[in-house]
Amino acid sequence: MTDEPTIFIGNKPFMNYVTAVVMQFTARNAPSVTIRARGKFITRAVDVAEVAGKRFLEGNVTLKNIGIGSEAFQNEDNKTIRVSTIAITLERIKEPEQTL
Amino acid sequence: MTDEPTIFIGNKPFMNYVTAVVMQFTARNAPSVTIRARGKFITRAVDVAEVAGKRFLEGNVTLKNIGIGSEAFQNEDNKTIRVSTIAITLERIKEPEQTL
Repeated sequence: MTDEPTIFIGNKPFMNYVTAVVMQFTARNAPSVTIRARGKFITRAVDVAEVAGKRFLEGNVTLKNIGIGSEAFQNEDNKTIRVSTIAITLERIKEPEQTL
Repeated sequence: MTDEPTIFIGNKPFMNYVTAVVMQFTARNAPSVTIRARGKFITRAVDVAEVAGKRFLEGNVTLKNIGIGSEAFQNEDNKTIRVSTIAITLERIKEPEQTL
């Protein structure tokens, strides 16, 4: 269990998610942020991670981990549906310790 | 540079890609297979990796690595377009060495 901030990707405007990730690192000073998505939003999660990490936060964050998985749930017809998931964790790059 | 087999995900029927991955491990005896996709096919690449690795090859392969990145190219209007990429590598689980 962790208090690590998580951004769930859905169908809001793309930049909302990029901004949310960037803000966690800048305004909230989070050491790491995890971007999560299911199904068709997986591509978008990768886009958000790339734009936030390599454009807005270039040199400040690095890719810590990517995990994939599956979730199963019952649809209206009581049929089991499987959906893929992704979790992309970006991590703040530690600043070099100051030497006197 | 490596001879590691690579499956590029596009818009052929889903099971074609799953079969291609499974065949590399079974018929071709590949030690590892990398599933690659760009843009909207990224979600599909995750689906293929999950279905091939966890259903068809369960207990025989494991997730070795996932990489994400970006590629830039010029469209017809000479505008630079950025597209995200993914590379998912599945690896054969080493069988325990036989002891006499």
